[in-house]
Parts: sequence; C-alpha cells; structure tokens
Amino acid sequence: MKQWGGRFEKAASASAEAFGASLPFDVRLYAEDILGSIAHCRMLARQGILGGDAARRIVAGLGEVYRELDAGGVPLDLALEDVHTLVEARLAARLGDDAGRLHTARSRNDQVALDLRLFARAAAVEQVAVLVALQRALLERAEAYPDTVMPGYTHLQRAQPVLLAHHLLAYVEMLDRDAGRLRDAYRRTNALPLGAGALAGVPYPTDRRYVAELLAFDDVIPNSLDAVSDRDFAVEIVAALALLQAHLSRLGEEWVLWSSAEFGFAEIDEAYATGSSIMPQKRNPDTAELIRGKAGRVYGHLMGLLTVLKGLPLAYNKDLQEDKEAFFDAVDTARACTGIAAEMVAATTFRRERLAAAAGADFSTATDLADHLARQGVPFREAHAVVGALVRYCLANGRELPDLTLDELRRYSPAFRADAVGITAERAVAARRSAGGTAPERVREALADATRRVRASEAWVAERRAAHPTVAALLERPWDLPPR
Amino acid sequence: MKQWGGRFEKAASASAEAFGASLPFDVRLYAEDILGSIAHCRMLARQGILGGDAARRIVAGLGEVYRELDAGGVPLDLALEDVHTLVEARLAARLGDDAGRLHTARSRNDQVALDLRLFARAAAVEQVAVLVALQRALLERAEAYPDTVMPGYTHLQRAQPVLLAHHLLAYVEMLDRDAGRLRDAYRRTNALPLGAGALAGVPYPTDRRYVAELLAFDDVIPNSLDAVSDRDFAVEIVAALALLQAHLSRLGEEWVLWSSAEFGFAEIDEAYATGSSIMPQKRNPDTAELIRGKAGRVYGHLMGLLTVLKGLPLAYNKDLQEDKEAFFDAVDTARACTGIAAEMVAATTFRRERLAAAAGADFSTATDLADHLARQGVPFREAHAVVGALVRYCLANGRELPDLTLDELRRYSPAFRADAVGITAERAVAARRSAGGTAPERVREALADATRRVRASEAWVAERRAAHPTVAALLERPWDLPPR
Amino acid sequence: MKQWGGRFEKAASASAEAFGASLPFDVRLYAEDILGSIAHCRMLARQGILGGDAARRIVAGLGEVYRELDAGGVPLDLALEDVHTLVEARLAARLGDDAGRLHTARSRNDQVALDLRLFARAAAVEQVAVLVALQRALLERAEAYPDTVMPGYTHLQRAQPVLLAHHLLAYVEMLDRDAGRLRDAYRRTNALPLGAGALAGVPYPTDRRYVAELLAFDDVIPNSLDAVSDRDFAVEIVAALALLQAHLSRLGEEWVLWSSAEFGFAEIDEAYATGSSIMPQKRNPDTAELIRGKAGRVYGHLMGLLTVLKGLPLAYNKDLQEDKEAFFDAVDTARACTGIAAEMVAATTFRRERLAAAAGADFSTATDLADHLARQGVPFREAHAVVGALVRYCLANGRELPDLTLDELRRYSPAFRADAVGITAERAVAARRSAGGTAPERVREALADATRRVRASEAWVAERRAAHPTVAALLERPWDLPPR
Amino acid sequence: MKQWGGRFEKAASASAEAFGASLPFDVRLYAEDILGSIAHCRMLARQGILGGDAARRIVAGLGEVYRELDAGGVPLDLALEDVHTLVEARLAARLGDDAGRLHTARSRNDQVALDLRLFARAAAVEQVAVLVALQRALLERAEAYPDTVMPGYTHLQRAQPVLLAHHLLAYVEMLDRDAGRLRDAYRRTNALPLGAGALAGVPYPTDRRYVAELLAFDDVIPNSLDAVSDRDFAVEIVAALALLQAHLSRLGEEWVLWSSAEFGFAEIDEAYATGSSIMPQKRNPDTAELIRGKAGRVYGHLMGLLTVLKGLPLAYNKDLQEDKEAFFDAVDTARACTGIAAEMVAATTFRRERLAAAAGADFSTATDLADHLARQGVPFREAHAVVGALVRYCLANGRELPDLTLDELRRYSPAFRADAVGITAERAVAARRSAGGTAPERVREALADATRRVRASEAWVAERRAAHPTVAALLERPWDLPPR
Repeated sequence: MKQWGGRFEKAASASAEAFGASLPFDVRLYAEDILGSIAHCRMLARQGILGGDAARRIVAGLGEVYRELDAGGVPLDLALEDVHTLVEARLAARLGDDAGRLHTARSRNDQVALDLRLFARAAAVEQVAVLVALQRALLERAEAYPDTVMPGYTHLQRAQPVLLAHHLLAYVEMLDRDAGRLRDAYRRTNALPLGAGALAGVPYPTDRRYVAELLAFDDVIPNSLDAVSDRDFAVEIVAALALLQAHLSRLGEEWVLWSSAEFGFAEIDEAYATGSSIMPQKRNPDTAELIRGKAGRVYGHLMGLLTVLKGLPLAYNKDLQEDKEAFFDAVDTARACTGIAAEMVAATTFRRERLAAAAGADFSTATDLADHLARQGVPFREAHAVVGALVRYCLANGRELPDLTLDELRRYSPAFRADAVGITAERAVAARRSAGGTAPERVREALADATRRVRASEAWVAERRAAHPTVAALLERPWDLPPR
Repeated sequence: MKQWGGRFEKAASASAEAFGASLPFDVRLYAEDILGSIAHCRMLARQGILGGDAARRIVAGLGEVYRELDAGGVPLDLALEDVHTLVEARLAARLGDDAGRLHTARSRNDQVALDLRLFARAAAVEQVAVLVALQRALLERAEAYPDTVMPGYTHLQRAQPVLLAHHLLAYVEMLDRDAGRLRDAYRRTNALPLGAGALAGVPYPTDRRYVAELLAFDDVIPNSLDAVSDRDFAVEIVAALALLQAHLSRLGEEWVLWSSAEFGFAEIDEAYATGSSIMPQKRNPDTAELIRGKAGRVYGHLMGLLTVLKGLPLAYNKDLQEDKEAFFDAVDTARACTGIAAEMVAATTFRRERLAAAAGADFSTATDLADHLARQGVPFREAHAVVGALVRYCLANGRELPDLTLDELRRYSPAFRADAVGITAERAVAARRSAGGTAPERVREALADATRRVRASEAWVAERRAAHPTVAALLERPWDLPPR
Repeated sequence: MKQWGGRFEKAASASAEAFGASLPFDVRLYAEDILGSIAHCRMLARQGILGGDAARRIVAGLGEVYRELDAGGVPLDLALEDVHTLVEARLAARLGDDAGRLHTARSRNDQVALDLRLFARAAAVEQVAVLVALQRALLERAEAYPDTVMPGYTHLQRAQPVLLAHHLLAYVEMLDRDAGRLRDAYRRTNALPLGAGALAGVPYPTDRRYVAELLAFDDVIPNSLDAVSDRDFAVEIVAALALLQAHLSRLGEEWVLWSSAEFGFAEIDEAYATGSSIMPQKRNPDTAELIRGKAGRVYGHLMGLLTVLKGLPLAYNKDLQEDKEAFFDAVDTARACTGIAAEMVAATTFRRERLAAAAGADFSTATDLADHLARQGVPFREAHAVVGALVRYCLANGRELPDLTLDELRRYSPAFRADAVGITAERAVAARRSAGGTAPERVREALADATRRVRASEAWVAERRAAHPTVAALLERPWDLPPR
Repeated sequence: MKQWGGRFEKAASASAEAFGASLPFDVRLYAEDILGSIAHCRMLARQGILGGDAARRIVAGLGEVYRELDAGGVPLDLALEDVHTLVEARLAARLGDDAGRLHTARSRNDQVALDLRLFARAAAVEQVAVLVALQRALLERAEAYPDTVMPGYTHLQRAQPVLLAHHLLAYVEMLDRDAGRLRDAYRRTNALPLGAGALAGVPYPTDRRYVAELLAFDDVIPNSLDAVSDRDFAVEIVAALALLQAHLSRLGEEWVLWSSAEFGFAEIDEAYATGSSIMPQKRNPDTAELIRGKAGRVYGHLMGLLTVLKGLPLAYNKDLQEDKEAFFDAVDTARACTGIAAEMVAATTFRRERLAAAAGADFSTATDLADHLARQGVPFREAHAVVGALVRYCLANGRELPDLTLDELRRYSPAFRADAVGITAERAVAARRSAGGTAPERVREALADATRRVRASEAWVAERRAAHPTVAALLERPWDLPPR
C-alpha cells in the first residue's frame, strides 16, 4: 500500500524502494505520528469536516495501532515507505475505507514536520534533564572537596592555584549555557506545522489553533511553505549539542589527564574504567575517552545537516529525509554522553595531597608576588619583571618562591614587605576574593548561585514534561464536537 | 616590547614570533581594546587601586592612542604579538612607567575575552540590522506583486499554485528565526569576562559590576576559569550565521533557477549580473551564485571553531587564538551576503505572465479536484486515486484538468459536481484560506504580521546601538573617584 | 567473559558497559576477525610458538565459530564488549583453555586495526566495482544519444551548445578520478598492522611477512606505535567518498533539474520516481534528490573522523572506537548511492527535441559569431563587443542570431563573411574540434578512451577480488609447520 | 575595463562589484596567469592562429607585465574583477588592440582552472619539501637519543616501555603517508585544462599537447566541461592537508603534555615558548598549541570546499570562485605549521632520566611477565590473570614488579622461572624484537629505512621543482613558428 500511485503505470524498483524507504528509522516516531493524527482527527470532527462517528472510530483505531506498535513485533515492510504509511495501513486493516478520511486536509509533508517537532521538543527537554544530572554530580563533588587546592592551568602549565571546587564549577557554567541554548531552541521548535498541507495550506475550514492547543504548541507556523521546508529547529538543537559535546570533550580530556600516572589527581572508579587484553596492569579511562571522542560524531551530524540544506529550493525536497538519522543519533549520543559523564563524575575520587602538592610547586604563586609589589606602588609591568628574575634565581638555586627570605626578595626589589614571605598556594587562593574569583567565600557563593540555577532548569523540565500530552491522554480527552 | 620575558634567557625565534603573532588580525579590535582599558582604568581609580591622577593620565593617553590608531598608518611590528601589547606600547611611548599600572588586576586572558565579546555583541546587532534590510526588500517585493500566481514546488516539481508574495514571505520567516537566534546569542554574549585575571580572579578589591555598567554588559561572568576559556558565544553566533547562510543559499539557488532561460520567472537587474569574457550573450546571476556558494565558507568556519575547542583542558590555551580569523570572516561574510541579497532582491523584476502560465500548467490543480471529491464524502485516499487516473487520461489525450467537462469527470467518479469544472490556478489559490495558507486574504494578513515583527527587530537594533558606549563617550564620562 | 580484569576488584557498571561496547556494530567484522585469527594461529604454529596440534584445534574451532556467526542468531551479550571477545568466547566454549593460547603475541589493538583494514580494502574494491557500473550506465546512455545536441551551461545560463554525450562523459571523468583515489587509498590501506602487539611489538619470534602473505597484504607496517594508532586509511577512503558524493550530488541536481517541467530534458523512469500522498499528479525524482542529499551524511562522517583524531596522543586511545560506525555508514551510503544512480541513469530517457530546441535558442551561438570575426583578424575583445551589440539588436527586435542576414551582420562589422549566416547549434558543436571539445568526432574518441579506462578499473577489481583470501580458503590451506 | 559588457546597458553596482571581485585574493596568481598566457600565445603562433609578430609583441609585453607585478605596487582596481583582467589591462596599456588577440581560443573559465592547477601542483611539491624537513628533524632527534627509554602509552596510561626513538619514528611514518597522498594528488592535479574554452572546446586548430609540454603537464584533461568545472584537485590536496594537520595536532598535543610539569619529559627551547603578561613564572608551549589548534582551520576549509561543490550543476558556476581563499589559506597554514614544527622539534631537549624513571614505574613490565608465563606453556589468558593478581599484590604492599622475588612470583604461579625476576624497562624493550617492534636493533633498522624513504621524497621534490618552468624560462624559450 503506497499513499500514491494513481498516475503511475509502473511499480517502484525494489532497489529504489529500499533506497528511499525511511521506515527503518522513522518508525521511531510512531507515537508522535499517532499523537498528531489523533489531534488532527479531533480537529476535523470539531470543524465538521469529518463526521463525529467516523472520527470516533478513527481515534479508537489509532489507539489500537499505538498499542500494537508499542508492544513491538509489527513487521516493517519497506514497501510501506514510512511511518505515516505504516500507521495508516494498520488503521485501514481495522477500519477499511474510513481510514482514508484521516488524510483529509493533511499531507505527509506537514505530518512529518509535526512528528519531528514533537520528537525534537521532547529531546530538548530530556537533554536538559540529563544536563541537570551532570551539573548536580559536579556540584556534589565540589561540595565534597570544599578546601582542596589544585594548580590552575593555562597552556597546560601551572599558572595559579585554584580550588578544585572552583574548577568543577567552571563546567557547571558551561552546561548552564548549554541548557539555555536548548531552552531557546525549544521555544523555536514548539510551533505547529500541521495544517500547511503539502505546501500551500488547505481548502478546508481547519482550526490550527485548536490542534496547537491539543498538542501543547505555543505557536502556529505562519507560512505554509516555510512550515513544510523548515528544519532549522533540528539544526539549532544539533548545534547546541555540538557545543555541549565540545564541553564534554574538555571534561573527558581532563579526566583522562587527571587519571594518568603523571597527573595522578583523580581516580576514576573501576566501574567506569577498563583493562587490557594484553597488559594486566592497565586501568584505562575508557568512559572519559569515549565521551571526548564522541564530539566528532555530533560535529559530523551538524555538518551533515547543514550540507543537506545547502542550496535547496522551496519547499519540501526529498533530501530533507536525511534529517532524521543524523538528528536521532546526535540526540542519543549527547544524552548518553551526558548521562554517563554524570555517573563517572559522581564516582570520581580526588587525591587531595597530590593536588595540593602540585598546587604549591612550580612558582605558581609568582603572580602573587608581583601583585604584592604592585600594591606597594610598583607599576605592574616592572613588578612582573622583578618576579621573573626571582624565578630564574630560584631555578638556578633549587629554591621555591614561598621559601625565599625577605632579604633575598629585597635583593630584587626594595619594595618587598614582610608579608611577601611565605605566600603559599592557600594564601594565594584566599587572596583572590574578586567577584568570580577562587577564594573560598566566593566559591561558596558561586556554589549556592549555581545550585539555584540548576533548580530552575529542573523546574523547567518538570513543567514541560507535564505540558506535553501523551497518546493515552489525547485518546481519553472529551470530544469537542459541533452541534448536530 | 613583550609583556613578559623576565624569566626568559633567550629571544623568540623570528619564525615562532611570526607564527604566533595575532596582531595582523586582532588589530581590528583596537577600539574594543581601548574601550575596555578605559573602563578598567576608571574602575581601578574608583576603587582606589590606582591614584586618580595616574588614572586621568592613562585615560587621556588611551584617547590619544585611539585617535592615532583610528587615523591608520601605525606600523604593525610583529614583535608586539597582539593588539593589547600594541596599545600598551603606544601608551608607554606617551606616559612612560605609568602605562604599566594599567595592567594591574588584569591579564591578557580576560582582556582578549572582553575585546572579542564587545566585537561579537556589536556584530550580532549589525547582522540583525542587515537582516531587517533583506526582510524589508522581500516584503516590498511581495507588496509589489500582491496577486501574482506562481507554481508552488515540492521536489522541484510543480505541486500547487501559490502567490509569489506567499513564497517570498517564507524567506521572511526564515530570516526572522535567524534574527531570533542572534538576539538569544547576544544575551549570552553580553556578559563581562574582565576581572577574571589570568584564570583565578585577582587579589584586588575590584568592582566588576561597575565595569559592566560602564560597558553596558547585562551580567558579570560568575566563574573566572570559565570567563577566560569560554568561546561559546563565538561558536553560537557562527552557528546562527551558518544557518542563515543555509537560508541565503536557498534564496540564491532560487534566484539562479528563476533567472535561467528554462524558468524565466525573474530578471535580476544588470547591476547584479555579469557577462562572459568569451560568450557575448551571457548575463550571469553571479551575485546569487556567490551568495549560494558562500555558505561553504561559514559552514567551514563553524567546523573550524568547534574543532579548536575539542579536547582542550581548562583554562586558556593558545589554541583559542584561532577563534578570531574564523569569527571575523564569518561575520563579514554573512553581513556582506545579507546586504547584497537585499539589494539584489530589491532590484528583481518578476515576469507575471510566465509565472501565471506555469502556475496553471502541469495538473497543478489536481489536489483541488481530489479535495472536491473528499468534500463530497469520498475518502481522501480514494479521491486521490480517481484524480491520478484523470491525470493519466489527460496525459494520454493532451488535455488539462481545468478543461475537462463534467461528463468526463463523472466517467471517473459520479461524485463530481458542477463546480469541479474549470478549477484554475487562481481558484486553487483562493481556496487555501486555512491559517498560514496562500489565499490572498491570508497573505495580506501575513504581510502585516511579518512587517510588525520586522519593526520589532529594528527597534531592538536601535535600542542596542544606543546602549553600547563608544570610546568617545567613555573618555568624556565624569569620574567616579573615592574621596581623598 | 572479559579479556581482562585480573587487577580489577569491581565489575563495570551496566551503563558504562553499554556505553563502551562496540559489539553492536563491530560484530559486522566477524569474518575479518576470524580470517585474521586463522592467519595469526598458522603463523604461531609455523614459528613454533604454538604447538601444531593446538593450532589445528584452534583453526578448526575458528571455522566452526565462523559458520555459527555466518548463520546468524548468535546473541550479542554486551558484556562481551567487542567482536574479538565474542569470537574468543565462542571458541573457548568449544576448546576450553586452548582458546586462550590464540591471543599469544597479539593484542586487541593490533587485532582491531587488522580487522578494519581487511574490511576497508574490500570496501575500496567494491566501491570501484559500483563506480564502474555507474560509468557503464553513463557510457551506454552517451552511446544511445550520439548526436543529441543540448545547451551547455555556465552559471545555469545557456552558454554554448554541446552534445548530450559530451555532457554525460564529464561525469565519467569525475568518477574515473574517484576510482583512482580509491585505488591509491587501497595501496596505503593494504599493509599489515598485526604483530604490533599492544603498541611496542611482541617478545616472540613471530613472522609478520608470513601473515601478510596469508592475508594478501602488500606490506607490513614498519612501526608498532603507528600500526595501532593509525586510522589514516579510513579517513582517506571517506575523503575519497565525500568527493564522490559531491560528484553524485551534482548528477542528482541535474537529474532533478532535467526532470522538472521547466527543463523537461529527461524523463526518469517511474521505477525511480514517487508520487505524493496528497497531489495526485506528482512524479517526484526522489531517487535523484536522495542521492544529492546524502552528500551531507558522508561529509559529516569525514568531519567526524577528523575530529576524533584531533589532538590524540599516541598510541591507541578508546576514542578510536568511534571510527567504525562513521566508516561503515560512509561506505554503505556511497555504495548504495552509486548503485542506485547507475540504475537511475540507465532508466533515463532524454527528450531529443526539447534538448535541441533549447540548444538553439537564447543566442547560444554568439561565441561562434565572435570566433568568426576573430578568424577574420578582428581582435577577440573587439569581436566580443560587436556580437554583444548584435545580441541587443536581436533582443530589441525579437530575432535569433542564426536568422540574421549578412547585411544585418555587416551593419555591426564589415568583417563578417557569408558563412557567418545561419550558424546553428549543430554547426557550433561540429566546429569545436579541439582536443577535449564537443565535436562529434572528438566525443566518439572520448567514448572509446573512457571505455578503455573503465575496463582497466574493472580488471583491477577482478584482480583484487581474486587476491583477497576467504575464510574458507584460509581454513583449507595446507599447514606450514616446523619439523618436530 | 571589463572583459564583457557588449549586451549590457547598465553598469554593475559598486557593491555587487566589490562582492564579486576576486582580484584582492587571486592577484596572488599573477605569475601563474602570465605563465599560462605565454604558453597559450606561443601555441597560437605555432598553429598559425596568431601571427608571429603579434605573438612576439604579446609575449614581450607579458614579460613586462610580470616584472611590473613582481615589483609590487600595481593598484588593485576592483572594477578589474580578477587577475586575468588585470593582466590583460596592463598588457593593453602597452600593446593596444593586439592585447585583445591573446584571448582567442580561451576563456576565463579554462584560464582560472589552469592558474589554480599551476599553483596547486607547486603547493603540493613545496608541502612535501617542508614535510621532509620535519621528518629530518624527527630522525635527527631519534638519532640523538638512541637508547632513551620512555613509557609507551595507550589510553594515556603507561602501557609498555618503548624507545623514545621508536615513538618519534611513528610520526615519521605518518608524515610519509602524508607525502604519499600529496604525490598522488599532484599526479591528478598535473593535467592541462587550458583549451577547454568556456566549456565546450574551441573552434580553432589549437594544440593542447604543445601547451602541456611547455608547462610540464603530464596530461591533457579529456573533457572540456569537466576541465572548467573540476576542483577535485583542490579538495584532494586540502583533504591530504587536513589529515596532515590531524597528525600535527597529535604531535602538538604530545609536546604540550611532555613540557608540562606533570610529565616533564621534554623542554621546548625558549625560542618556541612564550611567557605571560601577568604570571612571571610561565613558559608556555605556544607554538605547539597553535600547531594543534590550526587543525581546525584546515578541517574547516575542507568542509567549506566540499559544501561549495555540493549540488552544483555543470559546468562552471560562480560559486567556484570560493575555492581560492580556502585553498590558499589551507596551503599556507599547513606549510607554516609543518615548518615551525620542524624547528620546534629540532630545538627540543628530552629529559632522559625522567623518561627512564617513568618507563620503569607503574607496572609497565606486567605484559612481559605474562609473556614469560605464556612461553612456559600457560595459556595467555591465564597468564594475564596471574599477573593481574600480582599487580594487586604489589599495589597492596607498595612493591614494584621487577623487585618481586621468585618465591613471591611462584606463590601466584608455579610456572615462573628465575629469569622472571628483575624484568626492567630496558629488558622489556630489548625483548620486543619482532618486526616493527621497539627493540634497539629494530629501531636502528627502522631509522635507516625511514631515512631512505625521506631521501626519495626529497629527490621527488627536486625533480618536480626542476621540471616546472618559470616565467623567465618561458619568455626566453626559442619560438616554434610555422613556415611563412
């Protein structure tokens, strides 16, 4: 059963049919497809375009098809092309001719756009949910190590000491922006394409606002050509996921570095590590590596989607069918990576002493000495040069900056005062009390503030989940029918 | 003059210096750099970190450096590495040692993040401005051809007739989403990184809120490590521009198609076409082709930026220097393409008769016949099959659907009624009165609605432009100094 | 059964196991894995590292596992991680402890590199095979329309008339380069990584040359670290496929254009077209559109693979596991697109009259008039200007160039001679007898030459297919054992 | 002076002219353009298409234009569009009308294809030259540290000890493949497009073989449509460069890791490091970071070029103008990165003791113990488990494997023999004598073998450089004229 064919004298070739069939992957949209069909059918009935009895039969039939598909095991005949045809075929098997009335005032072009938007908006919400889980894991680790000092790095060289909690909070911030982008993308996704017909609108007295209300869409897409050819929402979500994967790849890289013998800062729980088939001593940070590597996959899908859109004339073109697999895989990958990262982070133990030892070594308090001089009125540039010379002195004599005596310091600048002696990593951290800085009181405030924002994300997830109707809910909704 | 070197015993190799210098491209940020320095200096003075007299001298000196650079002709010595060092060197040439005090409580890491954000937020605003220009050109063309009917296409096959105005409005919608994405990106861009120091905050009683107020930032970035390593805003803007270029590539493709001999729908003004060095008859739609082709450039920059970020540990890494050229070129390309597209669209003449003739041909009203049957109670699927057979009848007999007699129609289905005869493209268009449809009254409403939204974009641009301080304004602002 | 675990005190988390398992996709490599294991086992026995009896049992057991997996239905337990562990587990179920001897002098790192290279080299060969099929389809169409004239385009404007056969041959050339790139990539792929061990070589007297001979590898990879971390061959093949998809996207675009009502140059067979669920008249070039759109997928995989490799330290990292799905899908996509394109091209009918009419219209012989003048000694630039003026004269007076009288021509230049009158598309085509030109005799030669090169590709495919050993062949090969 | 315009009634808009002009970047091709013009002119004269005297004047004039452009300072008037028009304008300023004869039997379409191929083939050769320099630097470092042992890594965990020289040689292998890909790309690049005319060949008795000989092209492109629309060579070269940048990004990553305080394996010379504007102690591996980061730029250009080609109908389209900037920048970036990497590698000092200490720690000889058991007949899988248990024993008791007594070992397996005691990193390295392994004798052979291949690359570079004609050489070549 094709949904077309009247003017065709010849059947599709088997190879073309297999090449063009989207059923193997778009079957994933069966719940969305049926949800949309129920809403469409209810609207047709309310507007008097479809008789109430036929409408009731169709909606009941759709419920049966939903349960059947939900139970699994329905064979995927490629000749059915796509999930829309599959659903209609199963409906027709139950209702006969009446099934054909469902497609009034609708095309597969606006139908597939609807299905994908329903899927995409839920994907955005669930991605924020898992982002929240990762943020919570980071916050929990930060709270578990409130005073642990570690080296802050630039250029992977030890730069200035920071609190481990401060470092972990940097990731919470990145993820917060990711959540923000997803919420913005959600807003643009959550508009109804159905009712655009094939491309030009339909010659029936439909009510798109009513369908939007049934399906919890905030808006109705205002231009029918745009409604069937727009895939911006998918690209925008995948772009947000690509940036998220960039963040996760940074986290993965750091977990790999930190669990190396050389850094030795962190121990990933064995449940998230693997061994080697040949080297009995190995404990490999596989999970962190895969999180890092999977950035490539999502970047690639973003490029793939953008390429598909390039140079397409209006309105719908078959090329757009290529949106789904890339989108699905990007959504699945990001969700899996974020979720497993949350588990891995939660199961990470940090080595306080190694972190502290590293934080104090390698002249990481040099800036504090320069700042000390600057506070005595030495221009910062000059102070910088003085401390640079002190570093060379230490290197030549095997000394560390906190151990230098005031005399030694004053040989390089008379402006040094007594409290320039013994600036440890802890003192350096405590001194950075500027807004956003790494001093313990700032980090405590930052933790509280980040926790508030994570709670807001969580609330948004709960609110959106509640708003989206399920098939069951839409099946049971009372009918809104015109008076006979 | 390097801004470092104290601990170095050896000069940089000339090739490494040339390889690492960002001055040739980041000099473009001189105004942003000076703007940030003035704000920083004013804050230092207000907080008593810097004496009022020195601060006044520095700000005045920065004003002079700004005018000098603005006038052009300052040689770019690669040994100066970057725009920050260039500005400081010019300042030092005027003020001597005092210039060195400006770098108190600041690092090039937070400084460059500031400069790029100042540039990026202005770029977002100016891109919306030029989007508005293109939207206005499309709206103006739509208004100039209120009744022109053309074929609507799917799969580049004539599908159903639509109004040309309806087709043009589809682009207005795409661009409206582009503007929305840029406004969202602006929001996330417009947060102050300065004050993060190198990565950990600074040990001075700075007031970042005050700097944010001077520079019209809505927020202060809450984590110092994140502040110096975050380039999300650049990626997010380029992602928005990539999607915009996808839209422009579709427009370019259509303009190329429409100005071909085969379509003959539109005539691009000669001012936007070119000839051939060998073929005297040629009139090539160069501008439209380049608009289409330049999608590649922006897609590439997006990929490049994402790649740079992949797997970077915190916080600042030199790799991030690679953000600028890609970002600048993406911004320049999108602005140029949008601007020239606005001119090209405005200068396009449509061939009403060719459009109308094409709209009526090739059975483009077949759906209307099927809908006619559906309204008589025939299940849509059956109606579809009937009209498919009618199309085959027409093909075999050289007929067109509007010319079939009622008798002929009824041979295929007794359900046809008299008004099934003579369904022209105009009647088909007029029938699609559903929300978002192509019927003239719907398109008139859509035009009005789109115009309203374009005006809102315009207002946002004006408001943002007014909010962003100029160097001149910041130079002249009264001082906020602590009591002596 | 993991292949490691001795030092682990804790089991993997179920989520980490599922996240890290490659079995769902690398099970596709079971034949390659078993092939490599047989060769490895035979080498171990020949070198006396493994006893002959154990070796015979292992090889026989591998043959059973192969048949078992080939028959399908073996459940994929994710705890088995990957295809290597699956195969070894099935072997152990048969042989007990002896199975464990197979992993002597081998690691999964060199094993997976081997499996992927075996797969990749076959993929390169089979892709050339299907390229040949497409080339043959194009050549056959070219031969079927030896004299058909069509407009040659630049900028999608009619430029100069060409033979349809000449146009089709341009694609044969592109595909010939694609085949060349694949053959070059094959050469670099066909080197043996096995024997590198985990990364450093093995402390056994192995003979890698012998394994290479058994498996028909031309070379042994000379550096063990490189052997386990190199995925260049996969990237290189995908890069070649991406460029091929660029070519196919051009072909797809032209087939879409040509089957539009506006061009009307070609009729794609109904077996490769589809209809619409709503518009009964539609005949959509779906196959051509999908071929065009699938460029995005392969471009994306290329970007994904390159991203995975970016910044990875030596040697093997788990990130490399991300190579497989992208590679498999790129290979499958390119093969499917090329194959279906061959069918679609073969089933395309060209409309000779429409092509000829278009070829003669729109001043496409203007260059010929300019060349006529140039041959009379008029500088080409001047000749170009004269004909440009003639075109304007024709446009103003509704004339076509071939119809102008000698008098009319001479009003614009006295250099025109009698044979400037009546230059038709056919005459224009016939005149372009330069090497590589569109004159019929040149095109005939080009057809013959291209056919020769296609045959050479075909011979290479046959030769390579014959060289690659099958599991069956390697099972039956006589043993090469050391004297007891 | 435009090269067209006869049929145009209106001038280009200034903005369209600026948008479409390629002169600002393609002026870089002036030498290639003039080289091609001289060859074209000599061929025209030889074939009697152009008189000998005019030809001599043109060639002499081209020589003057070359010297003028070479000296710099010629203003770039955007109205001249491109380098072809610029050159012809300068020629016309000297010769008047005769200059116009040069464009006989040629179009800018085949001309620009020629210029870009001339540039691209030289770029491929010069890139191989700089690859050789980097390979030589690696070989030299490998020779300087013939016995230095270091940890070999997988998953960034210490895996098995290797020689530093072995590790460095892995990069030589990667670069060798890069050179191979560039040589293959060169072969496909080095074919002559000139003579294809605008797209269809030319109606003159040209001799393309002669032009190919003058310009040292190996082949003549056989299809004129393909000749003007093919940019495969540019994409193929950029794809090869992208993979090279992946390799360089790995090297950059390792240099960054190795110069960190945590690894401390290598010291990058100060000439290739930079300091910090705020932290006086910093010594940042900027050069290595930039080398790593610049992968993004080249990946992006590859994506950009592929996008430009997607979906373009034949033959030339203006979109193709977008090839140049991406190609130029990819070529420049790869050359600069490779060159500076050669310098940086050459200036790197390795810390033998730190490397050796790290090589011996963390159970890196565990595999050797397992292999020891396997050689006593214990199935490898079982041996692996035994050593895993030994590792846990060591961890619990603060022991290292080489220090365990035979008694201790035998508690875990009676199969241990005396030489299982005291397996150090050096013994482990020495044992890996398999082909491609890290044993000193294997590495010595590998060094010799790699040196031979590098020399072959060098010879190819020299041979190709000698083959490519210069403008000077082509100016002075004796004339080949038909008898009068």
